Amino acid sequence: MAQVKDFLWKPGLSVEELVENMGNIGFQSVELKKAADVIVKMKKNNSDIFLTFTSNMVSSGLRGFFAQVIRLGLCNVIVTTAGAIEEDIMKATGEKFLIGKFDSDDVELHERGVNRIGNLLLKNESYMNFETWIYSALDKFYAKKKKWSVSSLLREIGLMIDDKDSILYQAAKNNIPIFCPAITDGAIGFHLYLFQQKHKDFEIDVVNDFGNILLSTSFDAKKAVIALGGGISKHHAILCTLLNGGAEYAVYMTTAHKTSGSMSGATTSEAKSWGKIKDDSDVATVIGDVTVMFPLVMIKALEELNREGFLKNATS
Amino acid sequence: MAQVKDFLWKPGLSVEELVENMGNIGFQSVELKKAADVIVKMKKNNSDIFLTFTSNMVSSGLRGFFAQVIRLGLCNVIVTTAGAIEEDIMKATGEKFLIGKFDSDDVELHERGVNRIGNLLLKNESYMNFETWIYSALDKFYAKKKKWSVSSLLREIGLMIDDKDSILYQAAKNNIPIFCPAITDGAIGFHLYLFQQKHKDFEIDVVNDFGNILLSTSFDAKKAVIALGGGISKHHAILCTLLNGGAEYAVYMTTAHKTSGSMSGATTSEAKSWGKIKDDSDVATVIGDVTVMFPLVMIKALEELNREGFLKNATS
Amino acid sequence: MAQVKDFLWKPGLSVEELVENMGNIGFQSVELKKAADVIVKMKKNNSDIFLTFTSNMVSSGLRGFFAQVIRLGLCNVIVTTAGAIEEDIMKATGEKFLIGKFDSDDVELHERGVNRIGNLLLKNESYMNFETWIYSALDKFYAKKKKWSVSSLLREIGLMIDDKDSILYQAAKNNIPIFCPAITDGAIGFHLYLFQQKHKDFEIDVVNDFGNILLSTSFDAKKAVIALGGGISKHHAILCTLLNGGAEYAVYMTTAHKTSGSMSGATTSEAKSWGKIKDDSDVATVIGDVTVMFPLVMIKALEELNREGFLKNATS
Amino acid sequence: MAQVKDFLWKPGLSVEELVENMGNIGFQSVELKKAADVIVKMKKNNSDIFLTFTSNMVSSGLRGFFAQVIRLGLCNVIVTTAGAIEEDIMKATGEKFLIGKFDSDDVELHERGVNRIGNLLLKNESYMNFETWIYSALDKFYAKKKKWSVSSLLREIGLMIDDKDSILYQAAKNNIPIFCPAITDGAIGFHLYLFQQKHKDFEIDVVNDFGNILLSTSFDAKKAVIALGGGISKHHAILCTLLNGGAEYAVYMTTAHKTSGSMSGATTSEAKSWGKIKDDSDVATVIGDVTVMFPLVMIKALEELNREGFLKNATS
Repeated sequence: MAQVKDFLWKPGLSVEELVENMGNIGFQSVELKKAADVIVKMKKNNSDIFLTFTSNMVSSGLRGFFAQVIRLGLCNVIVTTAGAIEEDIMKATGEKFLIGKFDSDDVELHERGVNRIGNLLLKNESYMNFETWIYSALDKFYAKKKKWSVSSLLREIGLMIDDKDSILYQAAKNNIPIFCPAITDGAIGFHLYLFQQKHKDFEIDVVNDFGNILLSTSFDAKKAVIALGGGISKHHAILCTLLNGGAEYAVYMTTAHKTSGSMSGATTSEAKSWGKIKDDSDVATVIGDVTVMFPLVMIKALEELNREGFLKNATS
Repeated sequence: MAQVKDFLWKPGLSVEELVENMGNIGFQSVELKKAADVIVKMKKNNSDIFLTFTSNMVSSGLRGFFAQVIRLGLCNVIVTTAGAIEEDIMKATGEKFLIGKFDSDDVELHERGVNRIGNLLLKNESYMNFETWIYSALDKFYAKKKKWSVSSLLREIGLMIDDKDSILYQAAKNNIPIFCPAITDGAIGFHLYLFQQKHKDFEIDVVNDFGNILLSTSFDAKKAVIALGGGISKHHAILCTLLNGGAEYAVYMTTAHKTSGSMSGATTSEAKSWGKIKDDSDVATVIGDVTVMFPLVMIKALEELNREGFLKNATS
Repeated sequence: MAQVKDFLWKPGLSVEELVENMGNIGFQSVELKKAADVIVKMKKNNSDIFLTFTSNMVSSGLRGFFAQVIRLGLCNVIVTTAGAIEEDIMKATGEKFLIGKFDSDDVELHERGVNRIGNLLLKNESYMNFETWIYSALDKFYAKKKKWSVSSLLREIGLMIDDKDSILYQAAKNNIPIFCPAITDGAIGFHLYLFQQKHKDFEIDVVNDFGNILLSTSFDAKKAVIALGGGISKHHAILCTLLNGGAEYAVYMTTAHKTSGSMSGATTSEAKSWGKIKDDSDVATVIGDVTVMFPLVMIKALEELNREGFLKNATS
Repeated sequence: MAQVKDFLWKPGLSVEELVENMGNIGFQSVELKKAADVIVKMKKNNSDIFLTFTSNMVSSGLRGFFAQVIRLGLCNVIVTTAGAIEEDIMKATGEKFLIGKFDSDDVELHERGVNRIGNLLLKNESYMNFETWIYSALDKFYAKKKKWSVSSLLREIGLMIDDKDSILYQAAKNNIPIFCPAITDGAIGFHLYLFQQKHKDFEIDVVNDFGNILLSTSFDAKKAVIALGGGISKHHAILCTLLNGGAEYAVYMTTAHKTSGSMSGATTSEAKSWGKIKDDSDVATVIGDVTVMFPLVMIKALEELNREGFLKNATS
């Protein structure tokens, strides 16, 4: 059984050294270090890794890091929400997100045409530019075929984008499918609807994508879930690995707690009862803000995997 | 400005009296009382009320209360997730949910074929019975037509069900549409997929439902949102009222906090910056477990509305 | 094993009926109902009940309810903090607390001489009036004797107060000791210090009070803890029952979570490892705001105990 | 206004670089970076820094880091609780704390004589060794004088300890006073009580220490508060800086939220209404587990201060 050890700083301390030390500090720092170990293990054991995140994380600067993580081969399937797709495109097409405050004068922001997501700010203008972009894109896609699964549409968008920090770009380039089971839950839903009104034979097939995500891995493959935040992204990844026999590894990272019985707060322990996580899985649940916790966990894993040659397209 | 008043119990105290007193206690009890007032106001002012809830609330005994709230005319549009649909059907067809513990031996539960949702338990068997039921239902629907929007499918299911405590039943009977923007995110998604494999021309049109939810209210109508928990249900209702000019009233109830920038934790203040909630809206954000907070808030509102004759199908 | 049952409202529903129903709803409502049962049991089994609460709860309207709970014989020992003492006195001497907002303009409040505690407001003036009152009281106490334990001082204050809704008054009148292990952590600490500067032989003996709280119960007595919120009040009650062999019953109510390893978030399960709660104890941990949760739990218990004649000074 | 920037990893990334980047990520990472900046500013502007922490943080491996922070001159006054004192002594005298699990079988732990603090474990035996140590120490102190303020007692203990990773040792060696307004709230309270029973003239003067903490800074000095966790430690530091005219700088770090009106969850905004934080203060509130957040924040500050020569006894 590991001992608590006094943590000491020394100048120039690296993130890797800090997280290594955290394994002996206590409380969430211990879970954080364990999460990094589980990610190393799932990668080394060649698992199909499902990475899920929510829209607000793409509003944040984690967006480029997600793209990097995809490029380095740390995930095989992505599940996210409509907002994440929209904001990745906005950023790829030059829209700026600003740092604001949690306690803002929201009426005043609204009057200035500024939207708030926690302490981040986004102009109405960015939504208008997105509208123009997406209609033009839909025209091109429709010219190719009338019926699209969501994942094939997102891949097509990724191929149109020219931004190495884009999630859609890196996913398309590295053949990583992106699933978005609630594609209509965003501005893009409205645009799809208007487009369909004009082109009655235009069709988005969400049912077909259920098959696609099932076939993105197999019963025999080792499977792993890295769920950042909660909601349907997390649920969908767990569901689909379950239908394929269950995941061997799982890392959940969330600010929600299990006490309200929500999916967002469900821990890797609860997942065992669902057969979602196999009984002998290597699992970690980290409670905390993903903008802080995820870089720490993933950097620790990347450093180790990089040294041992497990990263694709690795930074030298 | 209201004063803090010492709360005192007297034997036989009613829920209405307690919540009335809570307005002068402090902290969340004040917000709770305000939430009841906002609900009374939205109903009296004849708003189109969007009620959203998450799947785990339907696992809980709130399910019958939601059905009652629909029957009494306290909501005009429902937004929820796939799990909520499944579990309402399971309960309507006789499946039992049990009260367990948050800290369970999950491996042992799994071996016994029991799934855990927080401190609630559900047998694998119930999922199997649901499978049989839904395939038979899909056969009937398919015989009628090949292409379904989600809301029309859910209405059809509601018409098949014979259980006055069912959400789907009461919604269908009272002409309240149920929207489920991520219908494939559940066991039902798998069943739809298998059905579609057999019947290639069977189609679920989610894009069309975006139009249906938009048309379920209008720009001129007064609109209101009661969002229980977070996730896409909450987001979808806010989005759709926004596209119709914004809601006048909003009650959010959640265990999430705004500090992580998530939709689940977003407050009614943030919504103002999105123009989601109009600047002068009547709003309340209650932090707490919905299984406790919602009955208190809604009962307070129901008592007052009942007395003043604003309830449909009212209990005498 | 209990089943989930659909909750249904009927007009005039009482708090007791609601909480009874909550036992079959799920998540925190189940824990809440259990907490009420544990309180009934601890009282019927004639336990020495330690009630602990934090200062902000006395800022709120729970203050009068605490006084009522003391009067009705539902606690034998109280542990709280300095702020709770001060604010009980302020209220007893006519100071008003107002209901404000969590998101206030705090600079503007400060300029108006108003202090904020969450969504409650208190004027600087009230602190000044308290200062006058406490100096006059200290003069009287000092005339009686030079050396005081905290609990004897608080009892003396209680005997001076004439307000049936006061905690100090009801505690003194009903011979319930109030312990305050950090009496100097408040404005009162400053006043005691100034008084001691003038009267060098004036002495507050906190060590002696440790003996007093130990002797307030016994090894053989059944012991119980109702801890509202966390901090040293909760810790002190657990510590003192532990030194007397451990509590048989415990109800913890808090918004904190166990994931940070704090005392405030510690559950009744953790307490078992400390021998704090005996292994076979009847325990419940309710997560939620005490201003909502405590009235529900305690009213349910009071109704049952009242009917069966277990309340002192009972409301007829 | 700062922009959101895509975060990208590169091999060997230092903690300083990561936190620098966090200022442009969003949500809590932004607050975290701001907290580091506020600490740098308070130190460069020569403030009297009040550092507060709770007992469980000393159970964790942060204990050695706190000692290092004291040695490097990053705090001038410490406020903490009795448990923190006890556990610092236990560690200094060789007791081991182990890493366990949040979900333990607590009855089994109790039977093995093991106590749990979140996911940390401590043997009963360590308490017994502490008892022997403290009685022997009290004998020595009593031989010197009969009446002790808490801070002078803690200083005396620090001078007896020989462990450079000890908080008490570094505080004593660097003339940093430690205040503990609830010294009796722990095993040490029991030991003090038994000692006083034997030596009736032995006296702990908590009132005098209120004067000592007031005089540890001055009205004219710039003052700053770094509050880790909540409870009386946080409250006491805020109170004492307030009585000296208020703090210019404040960093709060906590897992509690403001929505329950507790001191633990009170933000630096609320503090403005109390005049606790002066209106134009530089402040940051970081929501998250201190075992992760504090090392990040403080390392960022230490790196910068070290480079610019602001650290005492600096690591070369």
